[in-house]
Amino acid sequence: MPDHFRLLHQDTGCRARTGRITTPHGEIQTPIFMPVGTSASVKAMRPENLKDAGAQIILSNTYHLYLRPGHRLVEQMGGLHKFMAWDRPILTDSGGFQVYSLTELRKISEEGVKFRSHIDGSMHLLTPELSIKIQESLGADIIMCFDECPPAEADREYVERSLAMTTRWAQRCKDAHSRSDQLLFGIVQGGRFAELRQRSLQELQEIGFDGYALGGLSVGETKPVMHEVMDACSDLLPPDHPRYIMGIGTPEDLVEAVWRGYDMFDCVMPTRNARNGMLFTSQGRLNIKRKQYEDDQGPIDPTCDCYVCRTYSRSYLRHLFRSGEILSSMLNTHHNIAWYLNLMARMREAITQDRFEAFRKEFYHQQQSETENHKEE
Amino acid sequence: MPDHFRLLHQDTGCRARTGRITTPHGEIQTPIFMPVGTSASVKAMRPENLKDAGAQIILSNTYHLYLRPGHRLVEQMGGLHKFMAWDRPILTDSGGFQVYSLTELRKISEEGVKFRSHIDGSMHLLTPELSIKIQESLGADIIMCFDECPPAEADREYVERSLAMTTRWAQRCKDAHSRSDQLLFGIVQGGRFAELRQRSLQELQEIGFDGYALGGLSVGETKPVMHEVMDACSDLLPPDHPRYIMGIGTPEDLVEAVWRGYDMFDCVMPTRNARNGMLFTSQGRLNIKRKQYEDDQGPIDPTCDCYVCRTYSRSYLRHLFRSGEILSSMLNTHHNIAWYLNLMARMREAITQDRFEAFRKEFYHQQQSETENHKEE
Ligand SMILES: [Zn+2]
Ligand SMILES: [Zn+2]
Repeated sequence: MPDHFRLLHQDTGCRARTGRITTPHGEIQTPIFMPVGTSASVKAMRPENLKDAGAQIILSNTYHLYLRPGHRLVEQMGGLHKFMAWDRPILTDSGGFQVYSLTELRKISEEGVKFRSHIDGSMHLLTPELSIKIQESLGADIIMCFDECPPAEADREYVERSLAMTTRWAQRCKDAHSRSDQLLFGIVQGGRFAELRQRSLQELQEIGFDGYALGGLSVGETKPVMHEVMDACSDLLPPDHPRYIMGIGTPEDLVEAVWRGYDMFDCVMPTRNARNGMLFTSQGRLNIKRKQYEDDQGPIDPTCDCYVCRTYSRSYLRHLFRSGEILSSMLNTHHNIAWYLNLMARMREAITQDRFEAFRKEFYHQQQSETENHKEE
Repeated sequence: MPDHFRLLHQDTGCRARTGRITTPHGEIQTPIFMPVGTSASVKAMRPENLKDAGAQIILSNTYHLYLRPGHRLVEQMGGLHKFMAWDRPILTDSGGFQVYSLTELRKISEEGVKFRSHIDGSMHLLTPELSIKIQESLGADIIMCFDECPPAEADREYVERSLAMTTRWAQRCKDAHSRSDQLLFGIVQGGRFAELRQRSLQELQEIGFDGYALGGLSVGETKPVMHEVMDACSDLLPPDHPRYIMGIGTPEDLVEAVWRGYDMFDCVMPTRNARNGMLFTSQGRLNIKRKQYEDDQGPIDPTCDCYVCRTYSRSYLRHLFRSGEILSSMLNTHHNIAWYLNLMARMREAITQDRFEAFRKEFYHQQQSETENHKEE
């Protein structure tokens, strides 16, 4: 058993589990959600706000930091932790997903991906070796292999070829990785094809990584397909390594993934939606723009004890949003992150008490009342 | 001597003075700068950030809050302090300045000012009585008389007629004011004409207010004219009442005004400039966008001990600005407010030690080095 991960408790009624990841910047209790800090900042949050909201680890983007301000500069400034004044763990993705989703004119070859910067139009070649070099310069606690992320609609033949290359790239990443203080995770590809996912996972395990991630989910596939892929890998994943599903998701996605035995998640949903006035509550989602909150003295969520819910009324938050105040993004983001992290904490607690199955049922019961709320609109 | 203001120390070498204003939400040490929270939020700052930056009192805008969310709503939500979760003193302006500077199609009559909302185009009539009613609903600790603010280029005849009406409006404001827990300040008008300023002040003193403000400055006049107006009123103002110059200013304006015996100031400059990347330092102004800060590990201002200067490098702040991160506005604003408030604290200390004249000289010496910096650009 590797010493960076400890499986703490396996729920007796389902595959959900709790664990602990040890990194140079502290421990992470799993299952955990990682707020996204794309450009070395979780938008509208100071580091101490993130801690107040309960963040154990954040994610930052290799693609963005490579283009601006540049990984060499971040390294020169003492690394990403010091640069952004965040002293808890950081995970960086590999840039794989972003070169496919954000750029045009990309050209994929065995060597790597040629792409045009979405910032200034300059041309770049990102290879497995460069991705690792960038991530070593940034200095995150957990770094990811560079992968190809095929589109959701790609056919089996394409996905099969792509996955074979992703495996070869994973080997190159492992060979290039020289910082022993960083954990390196492999990324399972294989699209919507269960068998290909299993093959990818098998090949990655043969190379051997500190953790395993499912990539290429939440890219437009249906929920049943997403769950099928989760299921296909869940029993084959080594139980003594952390399991990460990249880029998900909704609160329901997180519950489904934890129920299937996954440990780590990231998504821009809580932060991006916050800036658009969409807030998560135990009663379902809430659009703070709505007229009905004009004179509502209550907090966003009466069951949430975050700073925002302790301090401000829906009425004030609606006013801030309508007035375009920066404080609106700040407070909405704080609540949504705190709400997501509290959901994870409640899941960890339920697992420890062997009642995750009941937790999941109760959660869906609440989602149903949410659906009814939406009907009323 | 009124019991809401205590003159603490008169500098022996000039007209600068320290004092203390007592309000239902606490005491204010003068001279003081009030950060501007136009729409019930000092942009990009949480209340605890403001406290951390040293804010004793903030200003909010009657005009904006009347239009959105409406003073009745704020009152229903428990008043402005509770609405925005700020438990220290608040001053609200009267809306006088904004109806002239922000609206079109306004029509000024003895009754008040008819104007079109800059938000939704609706028509409104703001009168001295309504301004006081709004300010009583908002519940600030210090409220202002409704005045007419003539343009900088208005001729003497116009200004003379306007000032006479402002005096009649001031009487109506005093008559309308019913909340004894709020201090009501009169606003001296009279444009660039020293004699008219003195007449206005004389007339307001006859009515009798809790404090006296100079309005209609920093509206495009030259610095010598601004200083002449300050001088014209400074010896005539009752020493036992707080003296407020509205809407100024630059650090130099503040030093000049304090030197002339004024106590209170507000301006959007530190907050607005922060959002544009312009930062105040003891060495002069600094544009964080500049390439020279790309790899600068130092703080904004080595002599500033604010949260931002203790925590972040110029390099990171430049990166945030260039990336359009919300955190850029948050951190820049925090520093600029802390810097302004620290300047006021240093001025208070210098006055207490009877060395304001020396402080002023030293300050200009630093400004000179700033000018040299600008030449280098
Ligand atoms: Zn909350
Ligand atoms: Zn500072």
